[in-house]
Amino acid sequence: METLRAISQRASLKTCLAARDVEQDKIDKVLEAAILAPSARNMQPWRFIVVKGKKNVQTLVTKAFAEVNQMVKEAPVVIVACANPKDDAVIGGREYYLFDVGMAVENMILAATDLGLVTHLMTAVNEDELKAVLGVPAEVRFVVATPLAYPAQGSYDEAAKERLSQRTRRSLKEVAYLNSWEEEPA
Amino acid sequence: METLRAISQRASLKTCLAARDVEQDKIDKVLEAAILAPSARNMQPWRFIVVKGKKNVQTLVTKAFAEVNQMVKEAPVVIVACANPKDDAVIGGREYYLFDVGMAVENMILAATDLGLVTHLMTAVNEDELKAVLGVPAEVRFVVATPLAYPAQGSYDEAAKERLSQRTRRSLKEVAYLNSWEEEPA
Repeated sequence: METLRAISQRASLKTCLAARDVEQDKIDKVLEAAILAPSARNMQPWRFIVVKGKKNVQTLVTKAFAEVNQMVKEAPVVIVACANPKDDAVIGGREYYLFDVGMAVENMILAATDLGLVTHLMTAVNEDELKAVLGVPAEVRFVVATPLAYPAQGSYDEAAKERLSQRTRRSLKEVAYLNSWEEEPA
Repeated sequence: METLRAISQRASLKTCLAARDVEQDKIDKVLEAAILAPSARNMQPWRFIVVKGKKNVQTLVTKAFAEVNQMVKEAPVVIVACANPKDDAVIGGREYYLFDVGMAVENMILAATDLGLVTHLMTAVNEDELKAVLGVPAEVRFVVATPLAYPAQGSYDEAAKERLSQRTRRSLKEVAYLNSWEEEPA
């Protein structure tokens, strides 16, 4: 899929998950895309836990995910993104590990979209329960989780159509300025 | 360009900048890609300042950028990404604005790569000077800046070839685990 089309077609689709397996080579492609992101001073603070198998996914979702995300129990794969703040490049007093993980995760969900797979970034978890289920050390922070699945019905584009029709974004005018803050639209 | 290829070909290329103008429609495409990123609770905390014009770019780079980034003075456009932490969705005590800006910036630099344009994320700035030059309010945080330019010579792929041959990343084994932290490679 063309890059600009993948960027445009990516949508959050936790209600459209097929239970059938996702091939390991597709999981690998998604992860390989993630780690090609840049990072501040090339610190690569991202870590991913790939949760596979019906029982593992169900345990994680049941114990650690919010009620609103319980449908993710049906996914064959959940990828959890974490980072250790100690791996951060702190520059000018500014932390960069969350920014870096954001770039890697965007690559990951764009690659999934390109491969016809459904994702949905989720932040509403019980971090302590998630760490207990996955054996994540105390100093590591949970950042985000997503299911990785084929669409429940039809193609990716068909699965995403309704959701994309409801997408809301601030206009460029509101968020991009020319030459100085809020002077005029870029 | 295919999505996985753009993800793979994206490189940091501040030494390969042509001074000639970048068309406004390409700047717009890059910004439109940025704002299609998802964000926690759809808060869209990203703000972009598009610095255009030789004098504006030179003033910004001279006053606010580190010595190591002074070659960016030659770029026709510099895009500065900022965010107001007050626009953040704080979930479970975790801040998400830097993560969200990271996703938007990754879209931006992938779109630039797709359009044959050169970028290079930079974090080494004097934040106070940058805010003074651009009129950025005190409560807004600088996140990252990048030049946007055509390659100085040849195609994007030619410009990126050497840099990509030197790219270093931790292996998937080191950063992706199956079912629990560090249990085994995913």
